Amino acid sequence: MDKSSINIGILGWGTVGTGVSKILVNQNALISKNSGVQLSLKKVVKRTLPASRHGIKLPDDFLTTDPADVVDNPEIDIVVELIGGIADAQSLIKRAIRNGKHVVTANKALLAEYGGELFQLAQKHQVSLNFEASTAGGIPIIKTLQESFTANQIQSIYGIVNGTCNYMLTEMHESDVDFANVLADAQEKGYAEADPTLDVEGIDAAQKLSLLIALAYGVNIPVDQFHVEGITDISQQEIQYSRELGYVIKLLAIAKLTDDNRVEARVHPTLLPDRSLLANVNGAYNAVCVIGSAVGPTLFYGQGAGEMPTASAVVADIIDAAKSIQLGISSHISHAWLDNAHSEIAVCPIDDIETRYYLRFVVIDKPGVLASICSILGNYDISIASVVQKEPHDTETVSLMLLTHHAREKNMKDALEKILKLEVVKGGAKLIRIEEEVAF
Amino acid sequence: MDKSSINIGILGWGTVGTGVSKILVNQNALISKNSGVQLSLKKVVKRTLPASRHGIKLPDDFLTTDPADVVDNPEIDIVVELIGGIADAQSLIKRAIRNGKHVVTANKALLAEYGGELFQLAQKHQVSLNFEASTAGGIPIIKTLQESFTANQIQSIYGIVNGTCNYMLTEMHESDVDFANVLADAQEKGYAEADPTLDVEGIDAAQKLSLLIALAYGVNIPVDQFHVEGITDISQQEIQYSRELGYVIKLLAIAKLTDDNRVEARVHPTLLPDRSLLANVNGAYNAVCVIGSAVGPTLFYGQGAGEMPTASAVVADIIDAAKSIQLGISSHISHAWLDNAHSEIAVCPIDDIETRYYLRFVVIDKPGVLASICSILGNYDISIASVVQKEPHDTETVSLMLLTHHAREKNMKDALEKILKLEVVKGGAKLIRIEEEVAF
Repeated sequence: MDKSSINIGILGWGTVGTGVSKILVNQNALISKNSGVQLSLKKVVKRTLPASRHGIKLPDDFLTTDPADVVDNPEIDIVVELIGGIADAQSLIKRAIRNGKHVVTANKALLAEYGGELFQLAQKHQVSLNFEASTAGGIPIIKTLQESFTANQIQSIYGIVNGTCNYMLTEMHESDVDFANVLADAQEKGYAEADPTLDVEGIDAAQKLSLLIALAYGVNIPVDQFHVEGITDISQQEIQYSRELGYVIKLLAIAKLTDDNRVEARVHPTLLPDRSLLANVNGAYNAVCVIGSAVGPTLFYGQGAGEMPTASAVVADIIDAAKSIQLGISSHISHAWLDNAHSEIAVCPIDDIETRYYLRFVVIDKPGVLASICSILGNYDISIASVVQKEPHDTETVSLMLLTHHAREKNMKDALEKILKLEVVKGGAKLIRIEEEVAF
Repeated sequence: MDKSSINIGILGWGTVGTGVSKILVNQNALISKNSGVQLSLKKVVKRTLPASRHGIKLPDDFLTTDPADVVDNPEIDIVVELIGGIADAQSLIKRAIRNGKHVVTANKALLAEYGGELFQLAQKHQVSLNFEASTAGGIPIIKTLQESFTANQIQSIYGIVNGTCNYMLTEMHESDVDFANVLADAQEKGYAEADPTLDVEGIDAAQKLSLLIALAYGVNIPVDQFHVEGITDISQQEIQYSRELGYVIKLLAIAKLTDDNRVEARVHPTLLPDRSLLANVNGAYNAVCVIGSAVGPTLFYGQGAGEMPTASAVVADIIDAAKSIQLGISSHISHAWLDNAHSEIAVCPIDDIETRYYLRFVVIDKPGVLASICSILGNYDISIASVVQKEPHDTETVSLMLLTHHAREKNMKDALEKILKLEVVKGGAKLIRIEEEVAF
């Protein structure tokens, strides 16, 4: 065994695993030159055993179907978990940690649910557990929050962290297609899964938000305490009306520290001013805005998924772990995460947030309708910034759009309940929250 | 002496030094919670001795006029150099390193010229020399290149790294003011120095580019080998004509790896497509695009200067050094920089680059003028993408704008020389390079 090189085993040879193996095999000299570490890929675990994947062929003895060949292998220094899912990944990571191996993972679902437990185990066994690729692919947002913004109280985070939704919303803005058609197109192009639920319902974004919140606020909030809305309810009408009002619709993962030291944690479609940087993050790209007490507003942009961008982040984590091994450091665990259990910061219920709103009602086209709606809103302390009424839908109904000033969500819900009981209002209402703080 | 805490001495109590002292004093608990290190500010060296600066008052015994109280003080673990300039900063940093102290600096001018020598000295004495704040203020671009993109061959870097120039150009785009007036306004508002040469002539941007190139390519190219143009030649006419053509003018620091393994290194005003993210980085903000072989296109945005954003980066560097001390690691020097001397990568002379160009000529308004100019360009293999002729300047001359396809710079220079000899061409020509690769 070559003691001067650090040996890597990969669990899972899917898209990202293939990218990681390509970099480890093809860019070995570059990595050594850039970082001073010598990495050797030794084993790849795969359910079935192809000897090659698109663009790379590994020696036969690198490939195995038995995870024990990696997690229990004394020759392996760093285990890279890329099988996804919860149960198997969790038990293999634990076994690797107990065997004294450093672990790199891209598994946001696992960390969102069991992060606290896994980080404690890693600390106990003095190994690192790195997870840069779990959020926003190639964008180094995890390292930035852990290492670069440590002198900052993080005031807010606004992330476009789901490439599937961003691709779909971009398509809906750029052509006249509706949700169902753009989903079919995204599935055909490989941007959306056959079962797109995790992406389009905002669950994937919520899991990533949970990691960002753990790092920023040192608190592990279960995803089921977040307010999570996906994009399935966004129609061409909302896209077009928003645009006319100077806004673009994006699915944002939002965390905000409130004045009374709580954390807003929410994922939902959001209206952003159309000239803002975040509104112009298009296609399958991701971007995360972080506003810190010292650094002020920042934005990080790049590919949030895909073979090579994600592999770039995984290999950076491998290199960090390899440096720790070479320097003889036992671990460099995220402090924020380990302090979760002690944190006093609670989640701020969605009812308590204050924001601006876009509302659309379909109403009977007759005098006094706007007055009735505005009167109810006024009773709930909601004041109106602008109103647009569109041409009739049919002979008797019209779309009525309102942009409000800042209002409390609870008031908005109560007001909507009353408005929807008005006889002149037909069908439901559309409500989309507006964020102006990211208007840079 | 409290062995559990790491002691900090600051050389220079100007804007950034004040910000650093504010964070170290006011955010001590936050830093400890976020990073696990306990930092203590012990000494601040200042030429004169005010006991307070805007927003902070330090104990009298923290303040001194003698740098030896920091660099020779056995109690001090980390020296923060914020005096700027070359000679004094260099000698104090060397003295601190020889005394076994870790050093944090924001001094790009010093590193651009003497980086290689200083990093070698730091390596010899097994201390770290951190410099995140030297480039793009609060944006963690140094750490990203050093640690996050190590698995990437860096294909290109495009940076808006001088906030003064970006503020001035933004003002020129947003109102009808000319260079001289916007400079006076920037000076009045504190965005530009009384002597603005380093900023407006592109020298500051070139020094920062030299650090980015050292990290990305492991080669220390002296700034005098770069092609450096400032913004003093940009008039309202160029701003307005570019905008009509769908472009925005930004001062960019550009590094590109060529196919034959050379590095283009240039700073100049650049036309960017107006819908691109980089074109929409406004005011005193900075942004750096990095395109890597694995990660693809990325962009990092934030405040490039100012008290607290810069202090945020300085303190992140202090925390990194403190962690090294606590973990007993002797150093974590940038590998790329130390390998400079061995690098085979040469700079690509400006004559050899290929890019697109914006050209403006003032010509006599008579038939055949465009034909003569196009014929010369054609002779030099320069083909034209579009032509716009504006209304007459006076009774007999008009402005003629050309956008070219990709052409070699040497050909462009030779063609221009011939064109300027035409009798119908009055005065000089305006030439601005166009970059389309950052059109995301």
